[in-house]
Amino acid sequence: MLFGHGGDVYSLSRELGLEPAEVLDFSSNCSPLPYPDGFSHYLSKHINELHLLPEVDSRSVREILSARYGLSPESFLLGSGTTQWIFSLPRILGSRRAFIPLPTYSDYMDACQAAHVKIDFLGPYPDGLEQTVTRFSADLLALKNRDLDNALIFVCNPNNPTGLFMEPSRLVELIKRFSMATWVIDESYAPFVAEDSQSSLISASLPPNVVILRSFSKIYGIPGLRIGCLVTTGATMERLRAGERPWAVNRMAQLAAAFLLRTPDYEENVRQYCQHQKSVLVSAIGRLDGLEYVPGSTHFALFKVKQPLSAKMVCDALKKKGMLIRDCANFQGLSEEHIRISPRMEDDNVKLVMAIREIVSSE
Amino acid sequence: MLFGHGGDVYSLSRELGLEPAEVLDFSSNCSPLPYPDGFSHYLSKHINELHLLPEVDSRSVREILSARYGLSPESFLLGSGTTQWIFSLPRILGSRRAFIPLPTYSDYMDACQAAHVKIDFLGPYPDGLEQTVTRFSADLLALKNRDLDNALIFVCNPNNPTGLFMEPSRLVELIKRFSMATWVIDESYAPFVAEDSQSSLISASLPPNVVILRSFSKIYGIPGLRIGCLVTTGATMERLRAGERPWAVNRMAQLAAAFLLRTPDYEENVRQYCQHQKSVLVSAIGRLDGLEYVPGSTHFALFKVKQPLSAKMVCDALKKKGMLIRDCANFQGLSEEHIRISPRMEDDNVKLVMAIREIVSSE
Repeated sequence: MLFGHGGDVYSLSRELGLEPAEVLDFSSNCSPLPYPDGFSHYLSKHINELHLLPEVDSRSVREILSARYGLSPESFLLGSGTTQWIFSLPRILGSRRAFIPLPTYSDYMDACQAAHVKIDFLGPYPDGLEQTVTRFSADLLALKNRDLDNALIFVCNPNNPTGLFMEPSRLVELIKRFSMATWVIDESYAPFVAEDSQSSLISASLPPNVVILRSFSKIYGIPGLRIGCLVTTGATMERLRAGERPWAVNRMAQLAAAFLLRTPDYEENVRQYCQHQKSVLVSAIGRLDGLEYVPGSTHFALFKVKQPLSAKMVCDALKKKGMLIRDCANFQGLSEEHIRISPRMEDDNVKLVMAIREIVSSE
Repeated sequence: MLFGHGGDVYSLSRELGLEPAEVLDFSSNCSPLPYPDGFSHYLSKHINELHLLPEVDSRSVREILSARYGLSPESFLLGSGTTQWIFSLPRILGSRRAFIPLPTYSDYMDACQAAHVKIDFLGPYPDGLEQTVTRFSADLLALKNRDLDNALIFVCNPNNPTGLFMEPSRLVELIKRFSMATWVIDESYAPFVAEDSQSSLISASLPPNVVILRSFSKIYGIPGLRIGCLVTTGATMERLRAGERPWAVNRMAQLAAAFLLRTPDYEENVRQYCQHQKSVLVSAIGRLDGLEYVPGSTHFALFKVKQPLSAKMVCDALKKKGMLIRDCANFQGLSEEHIRISPRMEDDNVKLVMAIREIVSSE
């Protein structure tokens, strides 16, 4: 879908006569932290280099990733956001079938539909990690081998919008057990959970039937630049590289990603700040009547909305105050009404809590 | 192909130990002019807005284009460079067959191959516009209607690398005559030839079987940003829009394109400067032994290279001096050896002429 995602500050800012940056956007799951020292200056001084084409294959970024993860530079493909890969994977890999556990990010479904790949939804799974893993494993076991053969299985880990997070070792176990399928693991939110060694599957021992997606938009707060990464090896990488188009990533994004990847404390700072702000939001909002926090590991928080409140009512009331949160109505597999809130900087979060408190108390 | 295009300053700069911007790149066909006043400042002050997603559908740019061309905003799709559209068109339109007159830009072929579309090459056509148009028309006439039905015909106008330019009225005549095909007209270099009314097919009376591609990289000198445009109407647009993915264009590119499109004298200045510098290059290089200018309408110039010189020899010798020109060896349909040169600012062009003169005289 083109519309209906989080982060559309442009429609709201037009409606309210604001600048896009004046909208308080709690809907897009990206780091709200200021960029590290020197970042803006670094990009500014390269504006005149926009006269040059970008690196055709984002080589300099791939070399930094190679050093970080201990995999060869050829194990990484950079794209115009992970969105590029989500949409091209089903097509380029030529899978006939895809399994998507629900609820999860809607673009996996859209991408499979666009590529005419048959989709089987698994679940929806109830709240809670243990039940989810148990039922997900059982559902996979119940499938025939020939159904899984050359199929795609999409897993967002940690998951959007539920925040559920499977430890890498548990996920690897599943991946090895169902090795006839190609697993697409979207780790866009993994860096908000913990450092690589505890949150990511990317390592020198990456199983060959896995494709990892890593967004730079979220942890580095650069969704405006469009850069994301895909990690895989062997035959899968060969097929993906053969289908790659030149200059997929713009030069500003290449420079920004290289700068931010080389600032290691920054990621840790973002993680700690966002998790702390999330806990503040959860404790303030979760105690309000009609809003129940759904426990998850991510920095964004999912809340059930109970009558007489409705998700739409809360979202609409906040919009009038120039605040965007995510109405989860278009996430397939969420039976009740939910909203998703991603923390901004502290002052804005305080404003949000006050606004929601007003809305709840006026009901 | 991923490598082998013009503009790969990164490989050469690594080889020579230079910064990418220190390479004198005459190979990439993009405007060398400084950006208009205020451009760098405008982009710089928006760096902090990269925290926001871009407009999902580049609406603000589409509205500017709508006003410029007198077509609805819905007639325009923005992408991550025209490259995005070249590669997605054959796939999304589901054509079984494509006709590509030679010689021309190689990505049309690559895109059709990637989408498993059968390619029929037409030509190669000899130098000279009249012979080309006559033979191209005759070749189309010789085809059966059922061969053309729902086929794609790619025409780069003006053409890369030959610079041949068909006036819009002549091209429209062909398009209407062979209306069972979908014509993809790549106008990336049209703004270097003349203003819209004399160089572009985009108008309120755009035939329904045409898709126009417009690069912003070339005329505005922003290849580093990745933004290009597609123009079409009716059922073709509906199919393309259904296959569109969100946030294809980054925010810097949206802001830059809007800024540059709103600076109308800039385009005229670029056109005049580049055409003047081209004429200087042509008269200086075209008179050298072994280098013969192939007449064309674009700002870039094609030269035949004659023995004992070879295209590779000239390119290699220039590389050692930190200068890139385009060896046209990988353009299918050019029987003799050719080089393509795109003007830079005057001082650099003087250096290039001196360097080529040295190479020629040392043979």
